[in-house]
Amino acid sequence: MNAPLHPETLRRPVPAACLDALKDKFGERFTVSESVREHHGTDESPYPPMLPDAVVFAQSTDEVAFVARLCNEHHVPLIPYGAGSSLEGHLLAIQGGISLDLSQMNQVISVNAEDLTATVQAGVSRKALNEEIRSTGLFFPIDPGADASLGGMAATRASGTNAVRYGTMRENVMSLTVVTADGRVIRTAGRARKSSAGYDLTRIFVGSEGTLGIITEVTVRLYPQPEAVSAAICNFPSLDDAVQSVIEIIQMGVPVARVEFMDSAAVKAVNQYSKLTLTESPMLVFEFHGSPAGVQEQAETVQAITAEHGGMDFEWAERPEDRNRLWTARHNAYFAGLQLRPGCRASTTDVCVPISRLAECVRETVDELDAASFPYTIVGHVGDGNFHVLMLLDADSEKEWQESEVINHNLVRRAIAADGTCTGEHGVGLHKMQFMAEEHGEDALALMRSLKHAFDPNNILNPGKIINW
Amino acid sequence: MNAPLHPETLRRPVPAACLDALKDKFGERFTVSESVREHHGTDESPYPPMLPDAVVFAQSTDEVAFVARLCNEHHVPLIPYGAGSSLEGHLLAIQGGISLDLSQMNQVISVNAEDLTATVQAGVSRKALNEEIRSTGLFFPIDPGADASLGGMAATRASGTNAVRYGTMRENVMSLTVVTADGRVIRTAGRARKSSAGYDLTRIFVGSEGTLGIITEVTVRLYPQPEAVSAAICNFPSLDDAVQSVIEIIQMGVPVARVEFMDSAAVKAVNQYSKLTLTESPMLVFEFHGSPAGVQEQAETVQAITAEHGGMDFEWAERPEDRNRLWTARHNAYFAGLQLRPGCRASTTDVCVPISRLAECVRETVDELDAASFPYTIVGHVGDGNFHVLMLLDADSEKEWQESEVINHNLVRRAIAADGTCTGEHGVGLHKMQFMAEEHGEDALALMRSLKHAFDPNNILNPGKIINW
Repeated sequence: MNAPLHPETLRRPVPAACLDALKDKFGERFTVSESVREHHGTDESPYPPMLPDAVVFAQSTDEVAFVARLCNEHHVPLIPYGAGSSLEGHLLAIQGGISLDLSQMNQVISVNAEDLTATVQAGVSRKALNEEIRSTGLFFPIDPGADASLGGMAATRASGTNAVRYGTMRENVMSLTVVTADGRVIRTAGRARKSSAGYDLTRIFVGSEGTLGIITEVTVRLYPQPEAVSAAICNFPSLDDAVQSVIEIIQMGVPVARVEFMDSAAVKAVNQYSKLTLTESPMLVFEFHGSPAGVQEQAETVQAITAEHGGMDFEWAERPEDRNRLWTARHNAYFAGLQLRPGCRASTTDVCVPISRLAECVRETVDELDAASFPYTIVGHVGDGNFHVLMLLDADSEKEWQESEVINHNLVRRAIAADGTCTGEHGVGLHKMQFMAEEHGEDALALMRSLKHAFDPNNILNPGKIINW
Repeated sequence: MNAPLHPETLRRPVPAACLDALKDKFGERFTVSESVREHHGTDESPYPPMLPDAVVFAQSTDEVAFVARLCNEHHVPLIPYGAGSSLEGHLLAIQGGISLDLSQMNQVISVNAEDLTATVQAGVSRKALNEEIRSTGLFFPIDPGADASLGGMAATRASGTNAVRYGTMRENVMSLTVVTADGRVIRTAGRARKSSAGYDLTRIFVGSEGTLGIITEVTVRLYPQPEAVSAAICNFPSLDDAVQSVIEIIQMGVPVARVEFMDSAAVKAVNQYSKLTLTESPMLVFEFHGSPAGVQEQAETVQAITAEHGGMDFEWAERPEDRNRLWTARHNAYFAGLQLRPGCRASTTDVCVPISRLAECVRETVDELDAASFPYTIVGHVGDGNFHVLMLLDADSEKEWQESEVINHNLVRRAIAADGTCTGEHGVGLHKMQFMAEEHGEDALALMRSLKHAFDPNNILNPGKIINW
């Protein structure tokens, strides 16, 4: 780790009275079992596990409020836990404390088809929600790859492949029920499509990674299932050609639902992993949503643009099963990449830049990666200027880890210099904290810190994440 | 006024040292002239003028920071002033102090056509921006009616007729330059389309009405000018038929750019004011953006839906000049309404509800209005569930004012009970403060207050607005 952690020196003692009170209240839904704590102190980040002192499984907002009041009274760290799929160390118990598992809060509370909204408990996963609402003709588009919980997705301001058309959790969360640090329960907004009634509490909690309050219910926007869907892939001679095509597509206002970039190494990995025969050169994967005529028109416009940039023929995936195979392959690009170097340790990055700077930013990164001692793949939500590098490291090599960190830092600095951000969708967690001052400046960080102090005066909520106290 | 104000008892003395320092720094751009103060202490709200002690015309972010530091040191109220078009008393100097006029900060700083973004100084108006970028093939869609400043629009989370398709300022502000209460200058974000890098400072300031910081620069999203545009009007036998049509249109996912409701009184007013011959029954006004084929398809879908709900034939406005006349008439509905009762005092409302509750909310309001002693009109951004009542009051009648306030309050309570909001786009200012606790609850309000205290510890920024200290 570039910023060394000394968990044992950071750990705060958890008073026995606090543990006893939790045990009394939750019975078997309270545990200090090593294996459960290990599970709740591990995420998809490159960090080693950092275990909480205990785990509580909550089933209601009132229960969450009870835990918050207790932890606040005893100044005990409290870390909300959803699906455990975060990538930057968000849920690691660096100061010990209680991991509050919300996965049993898995009820869809209401679906308002006329208003295109649904309200769910925080532990409902995006796939479970879509399963639940399938018969309404509506769907929830935000798709970060993992079957994350809606509460976790809100907390990290998640997005993914559909964001170019449907936006991110920032745009698609209408309201939240939140438990504050001192155990009060608030609702951040009603279900009106828009409001100018005071400070935007919803957006304050979206992306706050459990550091300002604990999200227990989420009201999201739904969308009509498109009448027609089609998907296609197109290979290019170079990265630049692919990116330039996307810039023109976005500028033309083509409402493409998804446009994903994969470099040739990522295509190769996906071919091996998903037993496909895609051409192993820089590739864009498109999905179009609309009426049958609209989808056709979009596809024709896009084909004309790609053809001007050396794009090869479109390969279509018209049938749902072909589309599913294609997008499953894309979603598995991470796992597929890991197989390029079996037994490796993975480091993933996540930057986002204005699209005009994307090609240059990727190109400079590729130059640096090509000189590295390990393999890598690149995939990107290219319509948003967001891309990821997966670096496949020898698990035992400190040298490779240090090398990957240098590349990661250079990439982040390149993104920030391009007026972009150190994280487009993964969040800050622990791993990106070191870049917050560089991205935002000390004065903006001071404002963020004052917000944290105002909302969580005892620093119990996921302490030590996003910004230092 | 329902919540009586006693400005003289609230006024804070402005030390001579503060005024002298401003005069030294700004010369002729500092004034205590009665007429200028009167202008800056008057808005479009029903409140009487409340004058600042002095007005400063700033020309740069550094100058704004200078004023903030000075006012913070002397604990002097500081009220940012854009175009003066706010409707709920936002800019009234209820505690005296300095009105900081930003209208001379009117430079378009940069236009990034590839990224679909523009950065402007806060005093640039939406029409000026659109004029500036016309040749790029892009446009900025947010249109609150008034030619408001971008800084003011961001500060009130403005929206208007295009929001159903393009969103509000909440979705379309990418980044802000903000001067904090103590005169630090921060930028809230870069120009990446999405970011998960910490607390959403941008959305904290959007809608904060000058109470958390002073917006000096705004980066907004732009959109490609649609290849084809068409507009149409359709009359209905009843409000319910019109609203039910809109619900189905939204549910079908038709990407209608605008869909506006006018009641028969509003149509009549517009006919008289704009010399039109529109049928005086409940009416929807549509605008469609897209490719020529896409626009036609949208229009056909919408016509089929309206026909099922008693909608009469579409009347088309294909030519740009016809469309402009139609939308100018719609935008002038406020002034047209005033002419229904020459010399009247107007009270406007602004609520927003989930669209499934819209028809019932409007119907109950109409029942109450029909029994009132004064005329009224209703217009609405019906695709968002947002509507306005314009009540035309005898300027000398306290009885009519009180009656209108009761109706306004009942309407707001009805909207909140329907899980809506006391203001969809006008903002809180002074007039809606009384509803904040009812809408958000005391605990959420306490969080908002703690945010205000954290960002503006001396309560100098537009004090007494949104929430009580």
